[in-house]
Amino acid sequence: MSARTILDRCDRLARLSALPDGLIERTYLTPEHRGANAETAAWMQEAGLRAWQDAAGNICGRLEGERPGLPAVMIGSHLDTVPRAGRYDGILGVMIGIEVAARLARSRTPLPFALEVVGFGDEEGTRFGATLLGSRALAGTWDPAWWRLADAQGVSLREAFTEFGLEPDAVGRAARRPEEVIGYLEAHIEQGPVLEERDRALGVVTSIAGARRMLVTVTGRAAHAGTAYARRRDALAGASEAIVAVESLAPGLDLIATIGRIGVQPGAVNVVAGSATFSLDVRAASDELRDAGLEVLLAEAEKICARRGLSLSVEHTHAAATVHCDPGLRAVLAQAVTATGDADPLELFSPPGHDAMAMASLTDVGMLFIRCAGGVSHHPEESVSEPDVALAVEAMHAAVLSLAESRATAAISSGG
Amino acid sequence: MSARTILDRCDRLARLSALPDGLIERTYLTPEHRGANAETAAWMQEAGLRAWQDAAGNICGRLEGERPGLPAVMIGSHLDTVPRAGRYDGILGVMIGIEVAARLARSRTPLPFALEVVGFGDEEGTRFGATLLGSRALAGTWDPAWWRLADAQGVSLREAFTEFGLEPDAVGRAARRPEEVIGYLEAHIEQGPVLEERDRALGVVTSIAGARRMLVTVTGRAAHAGTAYARRRDALAGASEAIVAVESLAPGLDLIATIGRIGVQPGAVNVVAGSATFSLDVRAASDELRDAGLEVLLAEAEKICARRGLSLSVEHTHAAATVHCDPGLRAVLAQAVTATGDADPLELFSPPGHDAMAMASLTDVGMLFIRCAGGVSHHPEESVSEPDVALAVEAMHAAVLSLAESRATAAISSGG
Repeated sequence: MSARTILDRCDRLARLSALPDGLIERTYLTPEHRGANAETAAWMQEAGLRAWQDAAGNICGRLEGERPGLPAVMIGSHLDTVPRAGRYDGILGVMIGIEVAARLARSRTPLPFALEVVGFGDEEGTRFGATLLGSRALAGTWDPAWWRLADAQGVSLREAFTEFGLEPDAVGRAARRPEEVIGYLEAHIEQGPVLEERDRALGVVTSIAGARRMLVTVTGRAAHAGTAYARRRDALAGASEAIVAVESLAPGLDLIATIGRIGVQPGAVNVVAGSATFSLDVRAASDELRDAGLEVLLAEAEKICARRGLSLSVEHTHAAATVHCDPGLRAVLAQAVTATGDADPLELFSPPGHDAMAMASLTDVGMLFIRCAGGVSHHPEESVSEPDVALAVEAMHAAVLSLAESRATAAISSGG
Repeated sequence: MSARTILDRCDRLARLSALPDGLIERTYLTPEHRGANAETAAWMQEAGLRAWQDAAGNICGRLEGERPGLPAVMIGSHLDTVPRAGRYDGILGVMIGIEVAARLARSRTPLPFALEVVGFGDEEGTRFGATLLGSRALAGTWDPAWWRLADAQGVSLREAFTEFGLEPDAVGRAARRPEEVIGYLEAHIEQGPVLEERDRALGVVTSIAGARRMLVTVTGRAAHAGTAYARRRDALAGASEAIVAVESLAPGLDLIATIGRIGVQPGAVNVVAGSATFSLDVRAASDELRDAGLEVLLAEAEKICARRGLSLSVEHTHAAATVHCDPGLRAVLAQAVTATGDADPLELFSPPGHDAMAMASLTDVGMLFIRCAGGVSHHPEESVSEPDVALAVEAMHAAVLSLAESRATAAISSGG
């Protein structure tokens, strides 16, 4: 097997989509999810892993170490997507994990730990709004409040579990105990331009930004399209001014702010908008920077609304703390990248969130970034090169061997 | 019967709604439409009119003149609504028409014409996007291209006709011949602040603005919310800047521009918008002003998009020419308003469109505006006063009597 096979497998999974015309959307607990788990399980088995679907719909594969039942090094990422997604975000990391395990199985390297590969069922949160459902189930931080979530068709998470053949009340069985896991590694496309700009195939992640997300509602008054300007309290005009202000203020505050969703009421061609609701996602290199910057953004939006006779309300829907990667795993990954021929591995911060954020509450985490073309992701044009994928496999393989070596040394020195 | 009864009837029709919690939405060819027609037909019959539903779902009532089969003076407006509507826009004019007919029937005044009252089934265009379907059917300007329209649930206009019990291929039977109609009068709330500001209950309409409507699509590139600003081509940020520009430029161009709808793709919290589509509705006192102003707005939007690396496309969906009310009917209405005690009737232009626009291709049209509180319409707070409604009934009654008198005189002088 080669990097080419990995890319082919990403192409095959791309066909498991709820959208027509080659567009990709594969969300949690759907027939497409089932299909992706089935294909991935088959590839895991082909690689020599024992494969099973866990109680939260994650697909898991396990290669035992020098004796059965040892704690595991886990390699994972997610198999779900955003709407109109690319084919590599998440998926590529799972396929790389399978290839690394296949190499170790083929070479019959005796490992002082088990190696597990996990394809998480939900990271993006596309279907139910909350993110990281799969990795949080495995990390043992499943939130029972999620059972009240429903998708756009009104199907509750509980119903979706049952329809998928899972038992909602057994979701706790997906949780691993900390003593069963040694560490978690994740390979992922960068989803940004830094590696490309600095001419590197790979990079080592220092920390993962914790996003805060909210719904911002601007309320004015619906009125007929013939209404004079002086009498209008146009919620969409106010929201638009706020969106432009967020965009212009954010860089100076070292924030990355995204408004990816907007809806207006009543939403008719000939009616001035009575209310407009938009999502706001804010990230920064630290939680302090992020929260301070967010306050400035919301104060400005508030000022814009007040001037227009509009009211503003904010519903906070998601907050995650910045997760710092384990220094030991960072060093292991940096060394592994060096072994691929990059004398001075680049370390960088991740504005996007990842399954590693959820896994950090269970075990130490480390992340490897892979260059992607133009920094584009969450888009059909998402693209990686075959040589870069080959290097990523090399590096992840080297990292696992290095962990095996240091663990063996530690066991010897501790007399184990 | 009194103005109070008219307001009560508006309240009763408000209950025929597709929305819960007292909110009003009543659209073309729905069960609510059927209910409104049934109630209105009963009130027409109670007033002494013969009532029937025409081949396009308009509800019609007819009071014969001094002999059966005479051409008719028509009084009409619409019974459908926007989403989250008020209870008077359209509806009030139909109820006033019924009351005027009831008075004439009660007094057994012999008229040299028939009097017809029409409640049009669609003026707002809420369900199928195109407006004035009811009045255009009656005016004989039904557009066969409309059969391709479908509602948000994918129900085609043809299917909706059939479900409502109408024969699509018989819609032509709703069309009246010009020789069957003498003129069309419509009473309607102003939907603007002018009458209130000038302290008048009633006003005479000079012309009705022809709106142009279009869908403006801004296309950028979808990208992950973690993407650096320099790499973004954010369609929603561009659209927002264009919306703010439209709002700030329009007044200086003597335009009324409304953006009542917006949608983004892919529309996820953590994805930069790849495209944003918004509606644009533009009106002015004349078609020349409107078209010249629109050119300026679109050029500015184009400039904004070009600067951001976005592309802009415009799909024109609707264009109507400004309709001028008949000078004779304007004089009749002005005289009628004078008779209610307003020595110097105000004449004003209508930015909103009305059924009278469609009827103008069949016959002469005249419109009476009624003061509404705060200029508010297309909103639950839409409000009129009972005394103003009483004056409107007086004026419409006086206008019909004045037409009867002038027609009788004309008939005598022409030896008829």
